[in-house]
Amino acid sequence: MVDRFRFQNVAIVGIGLIGSSIALALRAGGFKGPIAIGDRNGDALRVASEIGLGTSYHVSAAKAVAGADMVILAVPVGSMQATGRAIAPSLQADAIVTDVGSVKGSVIEAMAGSLPQSARFVAGHPIAGSEQSGPRAGFATLFAKRWCIITPTPETDQDALDVVADMWRGFGSHIEMMDAERHDLVLSITSHLPHLIAYNLVRTASDMESVAESEVIKFSAGGFRDFTRLAASDPTMWRDVFLNNRVAVLESLGRFSEDLAILQRAIRWGDGDTLYEIFERTRTVRTDVVGAGQDTAAPDFGRPREESSGEETASEEAAEDDAEAAPVSAAR
Amino acid sequence: MVDRFRFQNVAIVGIGLIGSSIALALRAGGFKGPIAIGDRNGDALRVASEIGLGTSYHVSAAKAVAGADMVILAVPVGSMQATGRAIAPSLQADAIVTDVGSVKGSVIEAMAGSLPQSARFVAGHPIAGSEQSGPRAGFATLFAKRWCIITPTPETDQDALDVVADMWRGFGSHIEMMDAERHDLVLSITSHLPHLIAYNLVRTASDMESVAESEVIKFSAGGFRDFTRLAASDPTMWRDVFLNNRVAVLESLGRFSEDLAILQRAIRWGDGDTLYEIFERTRTVRTDVVGAGQDTAAPDFGRPREESSGEETASEEAAEDDAEAAPVSAAR
Repeated sequence: MVDRFRFQNVAIVGIGLIGSSIALALRAGGFKGPIAIGDRNGDALRVASEIGLGTSYHVSAAKAVAGADMVILAVPVGSMQATGRAIAPSLQADAIVTDVGSVKGSVIEAMAGSLPQSARFVAGHPIAGSEQSGPRAGFATLFAKRWCIITPTPETDQDALDVVADMWRGFGSHIEMMDAERHDLVLSITSHLPHLIAYNLVRTASDMESVAESEVIKFSAGGFRDFTRLAASDPTMWRDVFLNNRVAVLESLGRFSEDLAILQRAIRWGDGDTLYEIFERTRTVRTDVVGAGQDTAAPDFGRPREESSGEETASEEAAEDDAEAAPVSAAR
Repeated sequence: MVDRFRFQNVAIVGIGLIGSSIALALRAGGFKGPIAIGDRNGDALRVASEIGLGTSYHVSAAKAVAGADMVILAVPVGSMQATGRAIAPSLQADAIVTDVGSVKGSVIEAMAGSLPQSARFVAGHPIAGSEQSGPRAGFATLFAKRWCIITPTPETDQDALDVVADMWRGFGSHIEMMDAERHDLVLSITSHLPHLIAYNLVRTASDMESVAESEVIKFSAGGFRDFTRLAASDPTMWRDVFLNNRVAVLESLGRFSEDLAILQRAIRWGDGDTLYEIFERTRTVRTDVVGAGQDTAAPDFGRPREESSGEETASEEAAEDDAEAAPVSAAR
């Protein structure tokens, strides 16, 4: 068995969903060395310690990274520069530093301006996550079969890059290399814009004073509930993504708005052919996403279906409680 | 046990996802009488017959409804009027006719203009579905614990309304009553706008010529894949929804676009406080949706997580196939 983890001493700075998943994935993959955890949030640190995610816990990022040969920065993109400055004085010479930020151009710039020359920085981004946040949200298989994008620059140390890529392979990830500018453009459409749109739709629905919020919630199974998941993502992380990938997000958003104007006009003028043609074309994209192993083939994301036995139905129905009508018995 | 199905002879016109789920839910709930199935699409009809969804199969809707005391119209909203006209001559006197259309105002109007005076029409809409279409997509528990909205008018026969409501209760649904205008407004925000936005985002992404479609698919786990599900919904059904709920959809869409302009401006001007404030507020909506039993509490919609045993990891890693890197072993 190849050793995917070619380092002895890890520091993880930022112990949210991604940081905690990395800690768990390291252990699950057989990493035996110390894992120092840094987070300026004392509550998160205490939880991490309760779960036993690491071997030492530090409010100071500088203290967390002292002695580590692999430093993983899992803080919001907007905190990368301050974190880089904080750890610079105590970084071991030749330490590998990598990150998991959703924007790469601004992070590379922030690190170039804050880390010492001797540190070997490799910019990375695992395309994985969930709407949940914090150290309790992590799980060891979060990165399995997901892509991890690494965005090298001419300054990137090849050996350090290999060590980082191998670590992600050890977590079960596939590796893709591209330059930071391309990453930021591609992700603006596959990740940043979808989150922005989800946040916006949930806001519009919540604010629609002619429709009570209770009705919006009650009938959300008609489609709205899907958007509430992305719109429950960490607000600090996403604020930073939009502030740090401004140009690409505005470009993608401009295209989205143009296309939306066409749909709006088709609805206003009763142009069914335009609507049908667009809806027919988008249908195949789902098949492609499932075919590429990027989502489940099960209907409705494989959401749990309601189930009940015939006996329960009979007894619950006897109670005649309409507000909680009994689910029908079914052979699936 | 109360008999939820107070009719002897059912006809279902339109055997897609909803029609087939009704047929299965009737049988699962103990309905023993004949179920005549009508669909002008010969392929759908043949599939329905192969699965055994009904007791007789008809390309002619008129023939399907002859002799039925309960007629369920499960065709796209735009086909309701033509279907009403087609079945009018052969409807049994006093037959109950109900529908499952996603728009109610236009369907009530279409039925008033096409059904005979003696028919008792009750407009209904189950808030349930999936992105899959056709007679094979149906399942008996689709309506369990979901809301079914009934939109009576002053002309609605009270007894017929009770029979229809009881049928949905027999499928495990909760019943909500409201007028058609309110239904169309509420659903414009909880269902119609979300579908429109999903269709549009998938279209924009597919068309973004500076990003290859393969990249859009490959990195779709960043958020985009969620939208591909809704955008895979039946194009005919959704074209008809937008054409028939024009006023309410344009109103909701107008609000969405105004709100999106505010986000766009905040990104352009680097206004992080506005972004954070909106993202923080939308977060609670998810909790409310889950609390109301309208979605699963599991992260990521409960999508199946990757799993593997340590043994598999070892042997797959020995194969050293990077393109299909082994998922990490994990205790979850």
